[in-house]
Amino acid sequence: MAELPEGSVVFGVFNETSDTESRVALTPDIVTRLKKSGVTCLIETRAGEMAGYTDADYAGAGAEIAEPARIVAEADALGFVDRPSPALVEQLKPGTWIIGMLGSFTDADYVASLERRGLVAVAIERLPRQLSSAQSMDEMTSQNSVMGYKAALVAANAYGSFLPMMTTAAGTIRPAKVLILGAGIAGLQAIGTARRLGGVVTAYDVRPASRGEVESLGAKFLDLGLDFSAGQGEGGYARALTPEEQAAQQAAVDEKAAGFDIVITTAKVPGRKPPVLLTRAGVDGLHRGAVVVDCAASDLGGNVEGSIVGEQVTDGGVKLIGAPYLASEVPTTASNLLARNVADILVHFVHDGRLAADMDQELDRAMVVAGAPAGQPSAETGK
Amino acid sequence: MAELPEGSVVFGVFNETSDTESRVALTPDIVTRLKKSGVTCLIETRAGEMAGYTDADYAGAGAEIAEPARIVAEADALGFVDRPSPALVEQLKPGTWIIGMLGSFTDADYVASLERRGLVAVAIERLPRQLSSAQSMDEMTSQNSVMGYKAALVAANAYGSFLPMMTTAAGTIRPAKVLILGAGIAGLQAIGTARRLGGVVTAYDVRPASRGEVESLGAKFLDLGLDFSAGQGEGGYARALTPEEQAAQQAAVDEKAAGFDIVITTAKVPGRKPPVLLTRAGVDGLHRGAVVVDCAASDLGGNVEGSIVGEQVTDGGVKLIGAPYLASEVPTTASNLLARNVADILVHFVHDGRLAADMDQELDRAMVVAGAPAGQPSAETGK
Repeated sequence: MAELPEGSVVFGVFNETSDTESRVALTPDIVTRLKKSGVTCLIETRAGEMAGYTDADYAGAGAEIAEPARIVAEADALGFVDRPSPALVEQLKPGTWIIGMLGSFTDADYVASLERRGLVAVAIERLPRQLSSAQSMDEMTSQNSVMGYKAALVAANAYGSFLPMMTTAAGTIRPAKVLILGAGIAGLQAIGTARRLGGVVTAYDVRPASRGEVESLGAKFLDLGLDFSAGQGEGGYARALTPEEQAAQQAAVDEKAAGFDIVITTAKVPGRKPPVLLTRAGVDGLHRGAVVVDCAASDLGGNVEGSIVGEQVTDGGVKLIGAPYLASEVPTTASNLLARNVADILVHFVHDGRLAADMDQELDRAMVVAGAPAGQPSAETGK
Repeated sequence: MAELPEGSVVFGVFNETSDTESRVALTPDIVTRLKKSGVTCLIETRAGEMAGYTDADYAGAGAEIAEPARIVAEADALGFVDRPSPALVEQLKPGTWIIGMLGSFTDADYVASLERRGLVAVAIERLPRQLSSAQSMDEMTSQNSVMGYKAALVAANAYGSFLPMMTTAAGTIRPAKVLILGAGIAGLQAIGTARRLGGVVTAYDVRPASRGEVESLGAKFLDLGLDFSAGQGEGGYARALTPEEQAAQQAAVDEKAAGFDIVITTAKVPGRKPPVLLTRAGVDGLHRGAVVVDCAASDLGGNVEGSIVGEQVTDGGVKLIGAPYLASEVPTTASNLLARNVADILVHFVHDGRLAADMDQELDRAMVVAGAPAGQPSAETGK
């Protein structure tokens, strides 16, 4: 076994593959890139296999293939698709940095356990996305983009008719009408992909600003025939809708949905109960053969009332697909983008061959949720 | 039960759904169209269910929902996605017309059994496609078109990366390179769909004329780096390649395939052993994570050596999908197109409320393979 070079930061990645996770937090091209930044990589055996990367690919790029115990013992920082299990947290040596989707907005107990163990925790979910320096670290954007692409593909593949219009000697097949609910990153990518496939796409989002983004992609913005402009807030900001207005809005979406062949909902909120975008009445209004893909399906419910993880056909003949793992189902691209994001976050914290957080910096202050005591200007750990 | 109108041709369709067949030879819109041509429809219970058409849809369009025994007793003509089973053939009353993919090129015994039973057999596979009047009857074209569309979708859905190029803050994902082998109707539709999805598409077909068709769709024609023009036949016609030349051609295709991420083969020949378009060496040359979709996979072999019906991953990490039932996996569109083709064939044979073949007509002579004795200018059966 080769010795790791002196004076470099050691970055470790475990095999997180499971029934629902095919991604990996490090890809071979990133190993090469990290080496140039003074970071040496240790990766668990077969960690990249489900994503299409072999141990030989990693070794060829300059990583060392290692057993988990060695990674725990030698790594200064660990990168995760998800986050370390409580059992793994107990094994990590104090001072180890962990970078992952830590669930810090919803799971204070978990974050406290990291603090208690003396770990330095970098929570990707807290990335200040508005900073231009943060863009290449934005895992939410990259993974939601993959999710939106795959959602459109899954919908097209499940639909019993063509998406594009087709003119044949025997007559014309009309194009599919696709409705995207939720026009964030995932929704916009779903719009683009459904339009590529020839579908006629309409989208809706409660954020008024999304109309321009939807229309700039060539899709229509769903016209609910409602006007909530009365009582517009100060300075042109939208005011919050009243409960009655929200109910009218939902009823209008449900009713309008009946005219579509495919509905894709994309309002996934990690760790929290997702908002309902289509009620049971909306699903019941869809025609036989219509397809619904709910990217937010979870044990807490999804964007679509009655959706469950997996595929079901309703009594009305609607195919209802609960698909919360779509990014993981395009594992090669998703891992590659995710690995770039994680690596850029890691490199941000590498200074002169050591890991350090500067709590005077907005990005560091936002993301370091454990291991950097308040009032202390910088948290530094070394070898 | 309503009485069928007097003086009209009665057209019957059975439920052919099975594990691999979701299509149906009649759709509700065609019921309406046939009524205008003096044809009354009988359809078996739940025949359209897998294709998204309910009994109520058919009844609403004016068809009668019937049990098989009634269809056998009352129908003047029967339409099939496939062909009647030998057991059904024995039950049909002499003089009944059957329209379907009868396998007449490869199964002379079957055709003889139809003749023996006194049935009038119209073989769709013998449609003289060059006739302009035959275009709306061209089931091979309509179903292969659906197959090509679905083949591209299945490949995209199985591929672990993006088809389109994507530029993100973290870097650029290059577009997938797609190779289509066989550039007939299915291949051209696969080219179009893969290009819609953002793939960079190259295609190949042994027919030199296909180069222009491929290029007109914006795809590249695969350059094998071989020149077979020496000894070109008289009048500019291509001569047949020698066995040595064919071997060189195959070796070149196999070698060139290694540069692609997705390979789709489309040379399906109903009832016959399909030609090999990619050998085992070609598959072994593909990179880990590459996807192959073989539309011709069958018990007789497919276009890809080693392909079987279903999905497998080779030792080299190539996903090899044998998918012979792709048209049936887009059952709503496929059935609608197929039903139009079958109905147009049926109506061609309806004259003054009776079914009759005119063996002086090229189309009739080509398609009627049983029930119209040679030397007899027209076969006529009535009620």
